[in-house]
Amino acid sequence: MINIGVIGAGRIGQLHIDNLVTMPTIKVKAVADVYIDNVREWVEQRNIQYITNEPMDIINNPEIDAVLICSPTTTHSELIKAAARAKKHIFCEKPISFSTDTTREALEVVKEEGVMLQVGFNRRFDTNFRTIQNQVANGAIGSTHTLRITSRDPQPPPIDYIKTSGGLFIDMMIHDFDMARYVMQSNVVEVHAKGAVLIDEKIGEVGDIDTAIVLLTFANGSIGTIENSRKAIYGYDQRLEVFGDKGALVTENNRPSNVTYFSEDGVITDKPYHFFLERYTQAYISEIEQFVAAIVNGTEVVCSGNDGLQAELIAEAAKKSMEIGQPVRIASLLEV
Amino acid sequence: MINIGVIGAGRIGQLHIDNLVTMPTIKVKAVADVYIDNVREWVEQRNIQYITNEPMDIINNPEIDAVLICSPTTTHSELIKAAARAKKHIFCEKPISFSTDTTREALEVVKEEGVMLQVGFNRRFDTNFRTIQNQVANGAIGSTHTLRITSRDPQPPPIDYIKTSGGLFIDMMIHDFDMARYVMQSNVVEVHAKGAVLIDEKIGEVGDIDTAIVLLTFANGSIGTIENSRKAIYGYDQRLEVFGDKGALVTENNRPSNVTYFSEDGVITDKPYHFFLERYTQAYISEIEQFVAAIVNGTEVVCSGNDGLQAELIAEAAKKSMEIGQPVRIASLLEV
Amino acid sequence: MINIGVIGAGRIGQLHIDNLVTMPTIKVKAVADVYIDNVREWVEQRNIQYITNEPMDIINNPEIDAVLICSPTTTHSELIKAAARAKKHIFCEKPISFSTDTTREALEVVKEEGVMLQVGFNRRFDTNFRTIQNQVANGAIGSTHTLRITSRDPQPPPIDYIKTSGGLFIDMMIHDFDMARYVMQSNVVEVHAKGAVLIDEKIGEVGDIDTAIVLLTFANGSIGTIENSRKAIYGYDQRLEVFGDKGALVTENNRPSNVTYFSEDGVITDKPYHFFLERYTQAYISEIEQFVAAIVNGTEVVCSGNDGLQAELIAEAAKKSMEIGQPVRIASLLEV
Amino acid sequence: MINIGVIGAGRIGQLHIDNLVTMPTIKVKAVADVYIDNVREWVEQRNIQYITNEPMDIINNPEIDAVLICSPTTTHSELIKAAARAKKHIFCEKPISFSTDTTREALEVVKEEGVMLQVGFNRRFDTNFRTIQNQVANGAIGSTHTLRITSRDPQPPPIDYIKTSGGLFIDMMIHDFDMARYVMQSNVVEVHAKGAVLIDEKIGEVGDIDTAIVLLTFANGSIGTIENSRKAIYGYDQRLEVFGDKGALVTENNRPSNVTYFSEDGVITDKPYHFFLERYTQAYISEIEQFVAAIVNGTEVVCSGNDGLQAELIAEAAKKSMEIGQPVRIASLLEV
Repeated sequence: MINIGVIGAGRIGQLHIDNLVTMPTIKVKAVADVYIDNVREWVEQRNIQYITNEPMDIINNPEIDAVLICSPTTTHSELIKAAARAKKHIFCEKPISFSTDTTREALEVVKEEGVMLQVGFNRRFDTNFRTIQNQVANGAIGSTHTLRITSRDPQPPPIDYIKTSGGLFIDMMIHDFDMARYVMQSNVVEVHAKGAVLIDEKIGEVGDIDTAIVLLTFANGSIGTIENSRKAIYGYDQRLEVFGDKGALVTENNRPSNVTYFSEDGVITDKPYHFFLERYTQAYISEIEQFVAAIVNGTEVVCSGNDGLQAELIAEAAKKSMEIGQPVRIASLLEV
Repeated sequence: MINIGVIGAGRIGQLHIDNLVTMPTIKVKAVADVYIDNVREWVEQRNIQYITNEPMDIINNPEIDAVLICSPTTTHSELIKAAARAKKHIFCEKPISFSTDTTREALEVVKEEGVMLQVGFNRRFDTNFRTIQNQVANGAIGSTHTLRITSRDPQPPPIDYIKTSGGLFIDMMIHDFDMARYVMQSNVVEVHAKGAVLIDEKIGEVGDIDTAIVLLTFANGSIGTIENSRKAIYGYDQRLEVFGDKGALVTENNRPSNVTYFSEDGVITDKPYHFFLERYTQAYISEIEQFVAAIVNGTEVVCSGNDGLQAELIAEAAKKSMEIGQPVRIASLLEV
Repeated sequence: MINIGVIGAGRIGQLHIDNLVTMPTIKVKAVADVYIDNVREWVEQRNIQYITNEPMDIINNPEIDAVLICSPTTTHSELIKAAARAKKHIFCEKPISFSTDTTREALEVVKEEGVMLQVGFNRRFDTNFRTIQNQVANGAIGSTHTLRITSRDPQPPPIDYIKTSGGLFIDMMIHDFDMARYVMQSNVVEVHAKGAVLIDEKIGEVGDIDTAIVLLTFANGSIGTIENSRKAIYGYDQRLEVFGDKGALVTENNRPSNVTYFSEDGVITDKPYHFFLERYTQAYISEIEQFVAAIVNGTEVVCSGNDGLQAELIAEAAKKSMEIGQPVRIASLLEV
Repeated sequence: MINIGVIGAGRIGQLHIDNLVTMPTIKVKAVADVYIDNVREWVEQRNIQYITNEPMDIINNPEIDAVLICSPTTTHSELIKAAARAKKHIFCEKPISFSTDTTREALEVVKEEGVMLQVGFNRRFDTNFRTIQNQVANGAIGSTHTLRITSRDPQPPPIDYIKTSGGLFIDMMIHDFDMARYVMQSNVVEVHAKGAVLIDEKIGEVGDIDTAIVLLTFANGSIGTIENSRKAIYGYDQRLEVFGDKGALVTENNRPSNVTYFSEDGVITDKPYHFFLERYTQAYISEIEQFVAAIVNGTEVVCSGNDGLQAELIAEAAKKSMEIGQPVRIASLLEV
């Protein structure tokens, strides 16, 4: 039985808690949230022993084996360092921080203390993407040549969220940067990003973009693209294609049902799932199950701190590329 | 260069003529139609040498190598006999006649005269169905167990047509009876037919049905079903599935384009082609090309007079089965 | 909190228990199995309070609110009667019995005692089939004309199971008989069944069939077919199509992933899920959730004792039809 | 009746001739080829009146209404100018030339002489792409945001061809540059091209690439990508997706049949058509039909000389971008 403390009981924290309570070998022992009074009733209904507004109560609690960090991004690095020093294993939502220097610092402490850290790139645990990754790793398509990721949200978040989000590349496309490395099994060496404000002018007014295409060059010589849009009217669009000298692997969207309606107006099938809660229901369960399995078995996590850092580096390069209108090499970010 | 005479210049006759004029090795030398004045202008535009209201003018014309019989069903058998006696090769639209005795008589003459006869079961020449037939013949699914044919028209023909059509089984489902034998490579031994009037009461008033399911037993032990409807609001529905101990083969409808529209209201693709002219455009061309190839090379036709007869026998059994509400064995129709 | 006792801890009983232990508002209080020693360890690992080899221990236990009957079919009717008399709500696996008379007797007691009875037709709770049923009920296809159900298992059960199974119609196709009534919202009035032994001669030697097609006539005038095979080499094949005057609804198989592999040998996608455990994972959860919801809210169950009886009547008619080689009217089974 | 002369009877010239001879309102009056003896027999079989090794024989022939220029790219511009001065309408294969200056010169003469010029971008006449273009133009997806074109050949051309091809951008991707403008109804303003040699080192040795992704910015603010590969092991891959604020339109590959094979090894469908001859059979027919229709009716051609020039400008920008490793604006190519 693994005892878990959850820090941050907002939307994503609640999602994890509701998954954890159905797992027979895991116990949610404690929940902390700065605004705990807003969620106290919700937490109490789940029979959780310790409820607090102070994350350090969880980190200092000797009964706790591992923490889930689901608080705002700006708090992640300090909580990781504190948890690591308290010898807790750590699951942290993405991104680790808004600055690759800050992230590196946190990873240093994790390394020193020898605890496990898994970053919340939930899409690695989705059946479709995992199947593709396995097939590529097994040589089904031979050497990889090109990659294409399409990732569109059903609607933009509120402007207030966007203001503090760090921008589309670090907030949204970071999932795709990680997916690109995961599927291609190769680091990104160069990034050329093109962004546009096509959906909502207010997004541009706060300095962000709502539509972007990024052209990636991988260390293994492959090239690829990622496309993001903040608003697809037909739902959450999550697709990937990888092409190599022995073939191609393509994954389409999942849908609520596979019913086809032959009508006078056309042949109609379901739209994709509306958003990530419906689309990645099972992936969110699997990522925690595998995190716990890694702790119990002492095996490596599927998605490490370095994976988190690499995705942040690509996001940083993308941001810079868009600003200067030219390709940016990842290596140039590492030089001082 | 094969010289062809076409008897009957109605809808299907015109379709064949328009295909024939694009084939470099075939010449449409003569066209006959009882109501030739109605179509004279249409025929003249195609630079056809002999235009007549008398089919025997074509049959007696020594320049003609082969005739296409596209006149009403009631005229087929006499024209076949006359053409055979004049040593013309014959392509005849389905069915050969409304009576299996009449059909047998005509086939007898064809045999005696040693001319070729191909029956117009155009669907045998469709890429999808031919691919399935080839795959079954090549053993892709091992021994066949079950067959399913779905065949729905976009709308019923006029009541006046239905009155003289011979009924749904001989007029419409006869295509599917032939397809069943073609794909299964086995004769039908028993038929149980269930019919209903669900679309238009007027169809029932003239003694016909508009919806039917027929349960077939094949000589090789397989079983199967054919479903027909006179009206599918979404277009011409032409599908087939065959299942065996090594797998299944399924063919879906062809559509005008393969574009998918992801909209707020669902994911929409094209309806099937509207009707047989669009759906079987290429099959109509191929059936004539292969008829001519059989003449030129002296090879067997894909769809023989006996194939025509067998389909008519199944239709007769289906009609009787529906009337008595019990299964009917084909053998029982052959006993005197 | 609803306290549940499970009678029968074989494959299906264990499936239900594993689902129940993840549901926060349900407690599995007791498990009974005649061969309890074979499964005692498995049950104990799930922290279940009462473990017994005597079903009546559960039925007589006042702490129990509802029982799940997952024991062999021959025991169902007596257990239903006993549980009903003890005022327990009942979930019973299909079929209720091998004899419609026995089933009727059990239903009589259930009615007298006023308890709830839900029959385990799990497919009603599958998203695809439920979506189709809802769409039909909402008039999406207007009046129904025809129905087609395809249902194939990946492999036959052991011969010893088949001997006591009651035969394909009551053991396997009964799910489809229920589905037919569920989707068409109409009773079946006539059945014509055709069976064959095409997969394994041993199945024929014990008096059963392995392949069957049944032609159904519904009270509302619609017609339809059900096809069953005991062995589809490509996995569990579960499809349905319903056609009406305003269109058609079709559901295809679910698959482990939606990845497409474009290879030199063709374009390859996943086979359907292997069997019912994978295919109906969520449906098994939903059926229990809705059973409990019906108890808590006093609403009607989705799948009643009468639904179980009706499916058994159709199975009985199918068996008789196959034996006599003629259609059988359901009404004829009700006359004495 | 339009009399046509064809200049160049290589692969593409023969394709056009075989299409032309089936069209009732068109006559192929003359064929010229520098190496006419190699193809004389082939041409004679088609009953063509004038056969010559001198293109000017056709251009000077007063019986000819229009010429098809299917000779090597280096000859196009001079032939266009000569034909225009002889008042012939012109259909010219793509590209018009390897230099935008040369192309502009030829277009100048066409304009002065007032003849029609259609460039052979056959894909505009494909049903799938035309349907998408129409839907975009009709506002089905609202304002366009992003475009994606995937275009892969089944195998690279011979190295000797590649040496004189002008490179992947002008030889192969030029089709996609035209398609991008056609679908988006907007000019390209900036290009960033990334190329790689991943298939065959020999291609790199002669100074070309075999894999490329180009990032495009359109005048209307949309962005998009084109991906090309010289070798897809599964066949000719021709897909397109356009996304806007009201939805997305996607077209998949066409295949020889729509048969699905459910086997023990997976669910297998046909690979895409092997190459352009099979894939664009109907598009090649339509482009000539519409060229002739434009002549007869005096309407505009679907694909003008300026369309040819614009595609060449994008190709030039792509080539330069790849060389300098930075985005290139189209406007910068127009400055002197």
